[in-house]
Amino acid sequence: MTEQARRLDAQMAFLTEACRLKTVTRATTLCDASRPENTAEHSWHLALYALVLAEHAPGGVDISRVIRMLLLHDLVEIDAGDTPIYAEADRAAIAVREQAAARRIFGLLPPDQARDLRALWDEFEAADSPDARFAKALDRFQPPNQNLASGGISWVNHGATLDMVESRVGRPIARGAPALWGWIAPRIRAWFATHKHR
Amino acid sequence: MTEQARRLDAQMAFLTEACRLKTVTRATTLCDASRPENTAEHSWHLALYALVLAEHAPGGVDISRVIRMLLLHDLVEIDAGDTPIYAEADRAAIAVREQAAARRIFGLLPPDQARDLRALWDEFEAADSPDARFAKALDRFQPPNQNLASGGISWVNHGATLDMVESRVGRPIARGAPALWGWIAPRIRAWFATHKHR
Repeated sequence: MTEQARRLDAQMAFLTEACRLKTVTRATTLCDASRPENTAEHSWHLALYALVLAEHAPGGVDISRVIRMLLLHDLVEIDAGDTPIYAEADRAAIAVREQAAARRIFGLLPPDQARDLRALWDEFEAADSPDARFAKALDRFQPPNQNLASGGISWVNHGATLDMVESRVGRPIARGAPALWGWIAPRIRAWFATHKHR
Repeated sequence: MTEQARRLDAQMAFLTEACRLKTVTRATTLCDASRPENTAEHSWHLALYALVLAEHAPGGVDISRVIRMLLLHDLVEIDAGDTPIYAEADRAAIAVREQAAARRIFGLLPPDQARDLRALWDEFEAADSPDARFAKALDRFQPPNQNLASGGISWVNHGATLDMVESRVGRPIARGAPALWGWIAPRIRAWFATHKHR
């Protein structure tokens, strides 16, 4: 067997395993509220957000790296599942499960590629570089847009308050993509002002 | 209203419309055969294929452009639907519907961006540049991998023969990504050899 065939075997095992991300469901629904969104289509939508909203990224952000990060950012959910942002959860225990998932899933790849893609995921998780901060901001920016489109279903279902949205979603968006927070903040506030359930 | 806010309004209208791609279903099932794949998650999976399989692209292919093309390549299906590759279909009529869809959907964006992204989609459709040929090859390479994983359901359901697979899928893969055709061709032939229904 050639080295290229060996690498392809490993890469195809990884890509076939990645297919399972299509069966992981999230708290957010589609924009038409017809069903919960899955993590694979969420990842596609986020990468498209990055492509279309690139001009609103802070200076120095490399959009091609951001897109790569977003394609990979939730693969660990194949093993660890999705944790809704407004849920009570043991986030330390989840982080441990996600680390184990990253080892197993990226570990399917040829070793050099496993290292490179794992490093990109680690960078996203640390949210310390401009690229990762912008990627994180998009990951927080897409769900409230879907909520606004669907009539706020996921906020109602998870008992989210304006304070919770501002701290859990607003802060990372404002940090990585201030222009996007400037655009959506008044829309979110208007929604909570007209939905006085909380 | 500032120019930035005006552009964001248009971009967000486009991104919210794009959400509908999650409701377009394809002939191919998920790898576990649990349900038909939708076009949004298919687009994510293809972009991940491009990222992981970049080293098998012919010389001169720009993978970041390929990834962008793949994120956009099926947006027209929001209006035109998916046409299974083995179906009898009036492909000229479909092309007309897809052109109208491209005008409407990319037309939601600010004009300069509409032009740029539409040009990328046109390049994909023409399949004449090395980037577009590699993107097309991946678009043909992913479904047979899912078919092999799921026991060939979509080949059986659509009455595909080995000849049909070799011409409709094999030819574009061999043209844009010969290494990938070299990898999958014996697997496809072995499947048809052991499933003598045709």
